[in-house]
Amino acid sequence: MIYTLALVGFGTVSQGLAGLLVDKADVLAQQHGATFRVTTIATRSRGTLHDPAGLDLSVALQAAQTGSLDAYPGDCLKRWDGVQAIRRSGAQVVVENTPTNLDDAEPAMTHFKTALEGGQHVITANKGPIALAYKALEQLAQKHHVHLLFEGTVLSGTPILSLARCGLGGCHISQIKGILNGTTNYILSQMEEGMGYDEALERAQALGFAEADPSADVDGWDALAKVVILANVLMGANLSVGDVEREGIAGITAADVARAKAENRRWKLIGSARRDGETIKASVQPTLIPLDDPLAGVGAAMNALTFCTDVLQSVTIRGVGAGGPQTGFAVLSDLLELHRRLS
Amino acid sequence: MIYTLALVGFGTVSQGLAGLLVDKADVLAQQHGATFRVTTIATRSRGTLHDPAGLDLSVALQAAQTGSLDAYPGDCLKRWDGVQAIRRSGAQVVVENTPTNLDDAEPAMTHFKTALEGGQHVITANKGPIALAYKALEQLAQKHHVHLLFEGTVLSGTPILSLARCGLGGCHISQIKGILNGTTNYILSQMEEGMGYDEALERAQALGFAEADPSADVDGWDALAKVVILANVLMGANLSVGDVEREGIAGITAADVARAKAENRRWKLIGSARRDGETIKASVQPTLIPLDDPLAGVGAAMNALTFCTDVLQSVTIRGVGAGGPQTGFAVLSDLLELHRRLS
Repeated sequence: MIYTLALVGFGTVSQGLAGLLVDKADVLAQQHGATFRVTTIATRSRGTLHDPAGLDLSVALQAAQTGSLDAYPGDCLKRWDGVQAIRRSGAQVVVENTPTNLDDAEPAMTHFKTALEGGQHVITANKGPIALAYKALEQLAQKHHVHLLFEGTVLSGTPILSLARCGLGGCHISQIKGILNGTTNYILSQMEEGMGYDEALERAQALGFAEADPSADVDGWDALAKVVILANVLMGANLSVGDVEREGIAGITAADVARAKAENRRWKLIGSARRDGETIKASVQPTLIPLDDPLAGVGAAMNALTFCTDVLQSVTIRGVGAGGPQTGFAVLSDLLELHRRLS
Repeated sequence: MIYTLALVGFGTVSQGLAGLLVDKADVLAQQHGATFRVTTIATRSRGTLHDPAGLDLSVALQAAQTGSLDAYPGDCLKRWDGVQAIRRSGAQVVVENTPTNLDDAEPAMTHFKTALEGGQHVITANKGPIALAYKALEQLAQKHHVHLLFEGTVLSGTPILSLARCGLGGCHISQIKGILNGTTNYILSQMEEGMGYDEALERAQALGFAEADPSADVDGWDALAKVVILANVLMGANLSVGDVEREGIAGITAADVARAKAENRRWKLIGSARRDGETIKASVQPTLIPLDDPLAGVGAAMNALTFCTDVLQSVTIRGVGAGGPQTGFAVLSDLLELHRRLS
């Protein structure tokens, strides 16, 4: 089967996906019977490319390196914004990867609604709309008989949502807890090696793990968005961002870390959602973890998640939690899930 | 949708499944739209029950406790053997859970062929037929347009095969390595606490982890069968049992364990399959693991598996690797996968 795709947003995630679609085209066709043809690439400030016959992704990736898509040959460059690109692309699948915005999720929210109302499937790694309005968007998708998939919103390509959907279906999940943010885990791991908080943060920034304004990571906002998504999608909760107790890692001192180490424990920023009677209690907070907990050994910028279930007890999965190709893979994984559902 | 099931073999796994089908009937119907009706339960020495209207599993479980199925009310008790039960049950799905036999996989192999050739889906936790003849059986299933599912053959209910199928589809797997046998991991963990090999083995036997004849576990045969299954199913290998290098844990001494501990390493019985050019090299052997390896922290009778991939680097999943309800859950998970494929 051939699927036409519009990529809305062409940053690291969509570029990671584009690279995979080039590299893995043969495998996808031969092993999965699926061909993904990108007809549209829309950016906010670098122009929009459109070719109904399919864009050459290698050329588009090169053009993107120049800071504009002007370099793409032919007359493919359009003056469309995101909404126009979604409407005029005619693509079956809209891959929305504009930057995450946890205030009102725009412009992604408008992109999602435009696509779903137009009968287009939506695949995304953008946490904003899913954290703020999962239920409404899922209902909109169902109303228009299309699919909304978002594996890349948590732990990048490490498959959490599909694991819960396929492998844990039929289990009752009583708690989800995990290391959901690689930057803070890197900082805490460095502090355990003897570094101070400021130095560890600077190093994370130098390595590109942390932004110049590190608040989204160190204050726990990124992990919080993921907790809301996990609780609402996998545990049937109905949480808003404001319902989650939140504490970042900035208050953790070198002395705290040393004391924990002497007690055979480790500080980790743990995102958790657990059932408490009929409600779901959710939090993001620095937590002392004993060394024999599966989350204790998760160092550097790795992520991990433990599902506490009725039948299987604890199941823990760990893997990379960020990166353009890895998050691009999450989108590819969702494209293959869509293909399974439609074929 | 309603599915009729014949359970062939009614030991701990099928009893675990039966318990889950009783406990979760409402959830399965309401959340998944699936009703599983067991019409036949065949045992080798305790008789065969059959009721086309569906057996009462709670009563059958109680009857099984008496050592025979005579106690089941009505005239449901038949003199059918496994093959007759498969043919005469008329069930859509045959759940085959007779004991694993790695020599010729009988009687399961005959049960599998009978069911597949008769157009019945087969779900199993029995490693024998899958380790010895996966490709031939998969071809037979395809020829007869039915499905062959076997999540319970590796890591019981901890979802490995579905993780690879759903979450890692599109990844290139270069190596699979893991702790695939809980008994040996328990013994090695106890030795690390200071126990000798013989004492640790006795304790595992007292706890029911190890059989009176512990050879299948401590000599690596159980892990070996799982390596063959993982390599052939997930990496496209064509390995026989004899192709896998095998060494058990009986040669590991308390001194070896103490020396490793002093070097911040741990002995683990590692099953591995890795690509080496065009071939797959597979082994089961005691291996020294550094403490920062995700497999190092896997203690007691837990299991874990690491997938080494091209895009996602390493993904490790850990969970329970044995137990009646847990392995029964693997069968339930496959029933839900079958339901997804057919609906």
